[in-house]
Amino acid sequence: MAAGEPGMTEQADTLSLDNIRNVLVRLEETILFGVLERAQFRQNPVIYQPGGVGRELGGESLVQYLLHESERSHAKVRRYTSPDEHPFFHDLPAPILPAAVYANPLRPNTININDRIWAAYVGEIVPFLCAPGDDGQWGSSAVNDVYLLQALSKRIHYGKFVAESKCRARPEQYDSLIRSSDADGLREAVTDAEVERAVLDRVARKAATYSRELEAMPGQSVADHAAVRDLYARWIIPMNKDVQVLYLLERR
Amino acid sequence: MAAGEPGMTEQADTLSLDNIRNVLVRLEETILFGVLERAQFRQNPVIYQPGGVGRELGGESLVQYLLHESERSHAKVRRYTSPDEHPFFHDLPAPILPAAVYANPLRPNTININDRIWAAYVGEIVPFLCAPGDDGQWGSSAVNDVYLLQALSKRIHYGKFVAESKCRARPEQYDSLIRSSDADGLREAVTDAEVERAVLDRVARKAATYSRELEAMPGQSVADHAAVRDLYARWIIPMNKDVQVLYLLERR
Repeated sequence: MAAGEPGMTEQADTLSLDNIRNVLVRLEETILFGVLERAQFRQNPVIYQPGGVGRELGGESLVQYLLHESERSHAKVRRYTSPDEHPFFHDLPAPILPAAVYANPLRPNTININDRIWAAYVGEIVPFLCAPGDDGQWGSSAVNDVYLLQALSKRIHYGKFVAESKCRARPEQYDSLIRSSDADGLREAVTDAEVERAVLDRVARKAATYSRELEAMPGQSVADHAAVRDLYARWIIPMNKDVQVLYLLERR
Repeated sequence: MAAGEPGMTEQADTLSLDNIRNVLVRLEETILFGVLERAQFRQNPVIYQPGGVGRELGGESLVQYLLHESERSHAKVRRYTSPDEHPFFHDLPAPILPAAVYANPLRPNTININDRIWAAYVGEIVPFLCAPGDDGQWGSSAVNDVYLLQALSKRIHYGKFVAESKCRARPEQYDSLIRSSDADGLREAVTDAEVERAVLDRVARKAATYSRELEAMPGQSVADHAAVRDLYARWIIPMNKDVQVLYLLERR
């Protein structure tokens, strides 16, 4: 199909297994940037409370409302038909653009752990990244939350592509673990401590570089750059691994 | 009013004149990041053509549609009641949150040059930043365009705060230029070649730093880092200066 026509292959390159590392490295910038932005503001817990900013948002919290609205409009332009995109809400409108044909290396699957990502974000990650209290910057904080939640979801669910790639590289090993539904064995098989350390080191180095730029500003407080490394170590890498295992258990 | 209540002072710090430089320096990261992201993709001109991706978007282009939807939901949570935010569309819904009370150092004014920013973006900046052609990455390109357009609009309209600050620092000089509606004189008065050079140097340095991180990835093409400097020199700084002059001409 000619490029430029509706229905053409979208993101063929991005979704190829060769390209996984590039996508993940680019997402590090996105996440790092989102963390530095969000950490400027206080936790502002009221923006996560259903009805917290008023009765006018249909009972949703401010962040739920903005994320929901973003997903509604993106669903209409077929964002969630792409195998690397996962919505937080499940009552989204159908795409109004013709379906794109994706070069999709994944097996059909139903994995979506956004409920867990949401709970970890609101309950653990925001308190970890931001100072307690309310500075009134509700709108800016909530817009940043939407940005970060979408980036975290994409990064964590990329585990599907990572798992597919590992599985194709060592079919015998994985086929036997999958056939016996051995979740612990699969978790061990997908774990590469050296790669994890390299990711954490790279993220820490980038955060230090970018924080230095920001610290050059008088009166500007920035997130401790170790925060991004810890975000990867405590939440992103473990949940990414969970996605890998869930995906492989479904891959029969 | 207590923090955390609807109607509290939002962004009091951000909008103080002392804080202008910090806001502008932070926006450099936002713009730089948006440029590096958008430049991954080709121009994809179809996403700017009204009706280009199908008749289902009410005759809007894909980018218009996504920007319009973003502005509709942000208007509901009162983004455009903040003096540093300017919408591209003028048929937005009223806020459904109670109005915030802003510490607003600006004089009442009607300046909004987003029509010009839009025209420059679609007609000049995208062709300047991105390789010609269509790679099918319509959704990703359009989402990035919304991000960049909103950042550019904020950066350029910050000229209002810059102008207010300059005017307060030298009231006699500016009062006389304003009383005689001397646009050329005002443009000359707000121009500081040394500051402009420092901005361009800083942006170029940051772009070089970030590009180096990205270039470390095999097979990853990144925008020429001079591109961000040129974006500032050719579009952002001149349009920011236009906003300063327009604001001062209205400041009687």
